[in-house]
Amino acid sequence: MDLGTPVTRQPLDTAFIERLQSRFGKDLHFGEAMLRQHGSNEAHFDVVLPDAVVFARSTEDVVDLVNLCVAAHISIVPFGAGTSIEGNAVPIRGGVSVNLSEMDAILAVHAEDFDCTVQAGCRREKLNEHLRDTGLFFPIDPGANATIGGMASTRASGTNAVRYGTMREAVLSLKVVTPEGKVITTARRARKSAAGYDLTRLYVGSEGTLGIITEVTLRLHPIPETISAAVCGFETLEGAVTTVVQSIQSGVPLARVEILDDMQIRAVNAWSKLSLPEVTTLFFEFHGSPGGVAEQIELVGMLAAENGGGSFDWSNLPEERARLWKARHEAYYAAVALRPGAVGWTTDVCVPISRLPECIIETKRDLAGASMPATILGHVGDGNFHVIFAMDPDSVDEMREVKALNARLVARALEMDGTCTGEHGIGIGKQDWLVQELGESVDVMRTLKRALDPQDLFNPGKIFSL
Amino acid sequence: MDLGTPVTRQPLDTAFIERLQSRFGKDLHFGEAMLRQHGSNEAHFDVVLPDAVVFARSTEDVVDLVNLCVAAHISIVPFGAGTSIEGNAVPIRGGVSVNLSEMDAILAVHAEDFDCTVQAGCRREKLNEHLRDTGLFFPIDPGANATIGGMASTRASGTNAVRYGTMREAVLSLKVVTPEGKVITTARRARKSAAGYDLTRLYVGSEGTLGIITEVTLRLHPIPETISAAVCGFETLEGAVTTVVQSIQSGVPLARVEILDDMQIRAVNAWSKLSLPEVTTLFFEFHGSPGGVAEQIELVGMLAAENGGGSFDWSNLPEERARLWKARHEAYYAAVALRPGAVGWTTDVCVPISRLPECIIETKRDLAGASMPATILGHVGDGNFHVIFAMDPDSVDEMREVKALNARLVARALEMDGTCTGEHGIGIGKQDWLVQELGESVDVMRTLKRALDPQDLFNPGKIFSL
Repeated sequence: MDLGTPVTRQPLDTAFIERLQSRFGKDLHFGEAMLRQHGSNEAHFDVVLPDAVVFARSTEDVVDLVNLCVAAHISIVPFGAGTSIEGNAVPIRGGVSVNLSEMDAILAVHAEDFDCTVQAGCRREKLNEHLRDTGLFFPIDPGANATIGGMASTRASGTNAVRYGTMREAVLSLKVVTPEGKVITTARRARKSAAGYDLTRLYVGSEGTLGIITEVTLRLHPIPETISAAVCGFETLEGAVTTVVQSIQSGVPLARVEILDDMQIRAVNAWSKLSLPEVTTLFFEFHGSPGGVAEQIELVGMLAAENGGGSFDWSNLPEERARLWKARHEAYYAAVALRPGAVGWTTDVCVPISRLPECIIETKRDLAGASMPATILGHVGDGNFHVIFAMDPDSVDEMREVKALNARLVARALEMDGTCTGEHGIGIGKQDWLVQELGESVDVMRTLKRALDPQDLFNPGKIFSL
Repeated sequence: MDLGTPVTRQPLDTAFIERLQSRFGKDLHFGEAMLRQHGSNEAHFDVVLPDAVVFARSTEDVVDLVNLCVAAHISIVPFGAGTSIEGNAVPIRGGVSVNLSEMDAILAVHAEDFDCTVQAGCRREKLNEHLRDTGLFFPIDPGANATIGGMASTRASGTNAVRYGTMREAVLSLKVVTPEGKVITTARRARKSAAGYDLTRLYVGSEGTLGIITEVTLRLHPIPETISAAVCGFETLEGAVTTVVQSIQSGVPLARVEILDDMQIRAVNAWSKLSLPEVTTLFFEFHGSPGGVAEQIELVGMLAAENGGGSFDWSNLPEERARLWKARHEAYYAAVALRPGAVGWTTDVCVPISRLPECIIETKRDLAGASMPATILGHVGDGNFHVIFAMDPDSVDEMREVKALNARLVARALEMDGTCTGEHGIGIGKQDWLVQELGESVDVMRTLKRALDPQDLFNPGKIFSL
């Protein structure tokens, strides 16, 4: 992976270390294990250690750390749960990793306004447990139990996005520490506003390159009166995808619709102790009033039957739904576990829904000759899907092969007016593709980055190199 | 209104005029009527004439005009339908107004993907007429028959936003001519993407200050199976607002809910030849399946009855609905017409929904002593409402009085964690309030503006002065 001009890393100088020590005391770490945790990633990228790790406990901590780093010209890389998969939090130029996981307070819930404010390090499962008694929930669900700040930074989405949108729609406002050490709030709590540039949306998806998010105000949704989940196996991949496309085009407000191909089902059966038929399968979730959900299920069931779907195995028991979605959430680990000792490489494209059948079928065909296990799964209601390769970490040939398969997949998506990343972000892994996708728009992004972070200290080398 | 440091306007020099003439020929205008049309506004702001008007017919025209203006250090101000109401398109520092209304082609409709691409000058009513046979519609409806480019520029919303969102959610991608004369496309056509900074959202709401939008790709929605409209009068303003808040909090997916106070109803009756009872009134629209709409109407009807609402006068006949919404759309003109010879001043605040009853009731109380007609109306499902003052254009005292009433209203909204503009934008009129609302965030906006438009030539002096 080309990370731009190699940067010679200098060890942190003593005076800087002393300043950190005196300000952060026991929240400052240099231990090998701690550095390794912050330099690793859940994907195939090399480990690059930070020079130090600081646990922030407040926005004021972040301000002071930013001021110290900027004065000393030291890079600063925010770290949440470490679940991103394009190397988004790997400190590739060293410097200080700032761990926000201790900033996990839920600061306010305004149930009557359907919003809440949390610290950036709060994880989504904790938030939803906290909200349970209010009748509300936070729908964005990328699978991993990520931090809300991390999810905002990568513009995460996941299984519920087809109905509830992504972090782009979910974030009402952010508190951000800027490279100048200022604390800004990007918006008020009103549901809509036309007050100046949309800074909220600028920071959502900026991967820590423009400042550090310390608080997030989120839109919440009422827990639906009725929730039903269903599983349906298909004779063909094409039949499954066509069912989804026709459901969306018929205006069915699907809450979730996930595809898992035959190999992914085999992986899930083994990992999660299920016994699903090993064919391409759709996992559905329907939200609404009892009558509305019944209408949705009837229509989708009919479309599935027309497209070679088997019986609609459905349930509205919470524990069965939970078992199903737990299996879906663990699909990544299940796929990697198909091959002992493997590491995962996940792709992430998204295309206009009309092009999805073609894109996914061509991809499946391309994977047929792969020398390692490769599964397809995805949030097909959005036109978004992934391939997970279970790769031998020591094989240069396999790395080359996966790179080529990924390149063909992204090229296919771009040809169809799609994007090189539906939800994982650019990080380290998608930088060349970003330029192919958006051309001179990337120059505008660089101009914004230079204007807001002129020393290039905030998660440098991510999204693009300056 | 303080427009920052006064700028001495120089007449355009002859060489520049010759270059314009040779490039734009009969699309270049200097006539008094044409200049006046582009220097006027639908509100109370002074007329400021541009030095020239150019009608653009293509993105290439805009590129060439941008390059000519930037080289000569001449301001350039985009103009669509001229329906904005914070003076957003008034060329307060002169220069060239670029009229995009001839760029009104519908370039593509991808019905199966629920999206379309239009030139910036296409008006929303034309688009919806064009879409009719596809079973889709473009829901964003600010009342005026604005251009799509203008709506994107001010982050417009209007009556359907409570259900379908604002231009923030509706715009999938933009074609923009940057101050460097580059043509960029901000996103692909996929429904979601995590590819770099969200330039689409940065330009939406930037009021022409960062570049000129020439094409817009929009998300569309299926025309609902059933549409029902209803009108309901209330004993008290509080009862009407509480009905809306309780409906929203009960999760009713209202498609439209508009409040018109007693004086606004009087205005509408006179202007649109209706005979509604002259009390605070809610206009509703419900979208969904026949069963879903029936459920919604039943629940909202019950809440209305509990809050002093009269009978629910409803209809799903297209012509009756059209008559109702035509009356709502003309409410602004109706309010100004309450007083012959008056000009309008419209306010535009938005607060968290839980604070709406308090905000609107205090406002009504404050208006009781006003010396001119002042009506309340708004998109209350979003917490967004307006006051329309019918002001004597020649009375300095009235201007002062309205300013003070507006100031108290905005201060009230900000105290409630609301915004100084729900949908009209900052333009000329809300600049001081923007700073009160977002503090040092405005400095970040200025930094972005300086980076992208270093000569401050693109709609200069709007949103903020540099």
